[in-house]
Amino acid sequence: MSGDNTWFTEIFAPSGSAFGLAITKKLDEVQSPFQKIEMFETTHFGNLMVIDGVIMLSSRDNFLYHEMLSHPVLFTHGNPKNVVIIGGGDCGTLREVLKHPGVESVTQIDIDEQVTRMAEKYFPELCAANNDPRATLKFDDGIKFMREAAPESVDVIIVDSTDPIGPGEGLFNRAFYDSCRKALRHGGILVQQSESPLIHMPLLKEMRGAMLDVGFDALQTLLFPQMVYPSGWWTCTLARKGAAFNGFREADAAGASFSTEYYNVDVHKAASAWPNFMKKALLA
Amino acid sequence: MSGDNTWFTEIFAPSGSAFGLAITKKLDEVQSPFQKIEMFETTHFGNLMVIDGVIMLSSRDNFLYHEMLSHPVLFTHGNPKNVVIIGGGDCGTLREVLKHPGVESVTQIDIDEQVTRMAEKYFPELCAANNDPRATLKFDDGIKFMREAAPESVDVIIVDSTDPIGPGEGLFNRAFYDSCRKALRHGGILVQQSESPLIHMPLLKEMRGAMLDVGFDALQTLLFPQMVYPSGWWTCTLARKGAAFNGFREADAAGASFSTEYYNVDVHKAASAWPNFMKKALLA
Repeated sequence: MSGDNTWFTEIFAPSGSAFGLAITKKLDEVQSPFQKIEMFETTHFGNLMVIDGVIMLSSRDNFLYHEMLSHPVLFTHGNPKNVVIIGGGDCGTLREVLKHPGVESVTQIDIDEQVTRMAEKYFPELCAANNDPRATLKFDDGIKFMREAAPESVDVIIVDSTDPIGPGEGLFNRAFYDSCRKALRHGGILVQQSESPLIHMPLLKEMRGAMLDVGFDALQTLLFPQMVYPSGWWTCTLARKGAAFNGFREADAAGASFSTEYYNVDVHKAASAWPNFMKKALLA
Repeated sequence: MSGDNTWFTEIFAPSGSAFGLAITKKLDEVQSPFQKIEMFETTHFGNLMVIDGVIMLSSRDNFLYHEMLSHPVLFTHGNPKNVVIIGGGDCGTLREVLKHPGVESVTQIDIDEQVTRMAEKYFPELCAANNDPRATLKFDDGIKFMREAAPESVDVIIVDSTDPIGPGEGLFNRAFYDSCRKALRHGGILVQQSESPLIHMPLLKEMRGAMLDVGFDALQTLLFPQMVYPSGWWTCTLARKGAAFNGFREADAAGASFSTEYYNVDVHKAASAWPNFMKKALLA
């Protein structure tokens, strides 16, 4: 697939696999202080954002990831009013969160303003809610923001970051989880993208262990498809402070005033069904 | 990824996407009367079978597909004794079916004996049950076999075929479904792999329509991940004669005497949760 200019291919060395999309042209490129951001126009998946050679999202399939990082956690919390998004610069998660009428404030902290500037230009549909008066976009260090956050001031924290290398590295450790837990109110929930169940099991196990170590009371790892990420199968992990995961507001989800392409009540419930190999790896 | 010999890459033109696995060497190649079969050794996925340039299975992730083509249908039928597999030459589905102690006979009809010969050599674990006295392996035309099958003689038919082009083409139409329906006993179930929910929706819709047209009474399309197939997300569709899908033998599945890597009761139930975009496309 290399050797000509008609494909963008990401090689994922740790699993000896590669995924590519046919492209019609390169739309843009910027080297920010943190990373290199590239935009391509694909033949079948709309626009494609790539950061430091790693596929972030496409127009066509980002709904899977953004909906699963937003709606399960928000419909599990009893009454989420104050939400923080760490990362999330493409604003797709922010858009989903703002669909919930009960949410009173969303503060998004992405370290790299250039990601949002690129998203405004090439994924305008994801940025359509950025001017919602409930939303505040900060471009700063999310680790520092959580460390300095007022104790017990937040209901839901969504960590929508890159992989645990480069700028995302500090978002996958005890110190960060401890900051998040302190900032959450009783019953509050942290949710973080937690990579592929097929090829990142050691990382997932480590994340879950670190979340419990800092005092979270219950964990829930959800599975969902995500074509453009390694293995096409992805997870997010929820960690709750002071309560178990028994509060799914099913009637609210069923009667939601907004539309979704992937998420619904059945999908919500199905996402927590673990394959046997996962139970064996994580619960043994 | 081309230009050197260290990758096998499948380009899937209809969705402008490509998937590749790093390979250490080519193990074998045979041109049968029906198709070209290639075997590779990969760096991370064990052995890889490719037919006419299309990835069929790898050692590492075939369990997903084979378990989902076998256990949901067998635990949904009340008492499956006589099973027919059309295709399935790699014998992975056969192995799963034979795990069910209540199954009295399994007849597998793959048109290409070379697929099974290659599987015996490079996927011996999948062929470990081939000498089970309940199993009969025929190398013949599955379409003709079903056309000539005795009426009401079979409980479950599993169509484990390639895509609906080439040798697999005749397995995706009304004439074939009509033969299958006639061969099934009352309450019998046909299950067939039905491609990707993300990129093959028109085919899936057509299959389901044809199944209903020939008189099947109820359909159920299940979703599951399958890394090495286009989009990494796949489906199978069950069509039942004379009954609805209300008979999942949950206690039997929970107390199964055999082990599985993916399938369990929760996974079974989760597989029938449809995303909104799928409901919209198939039920509108």
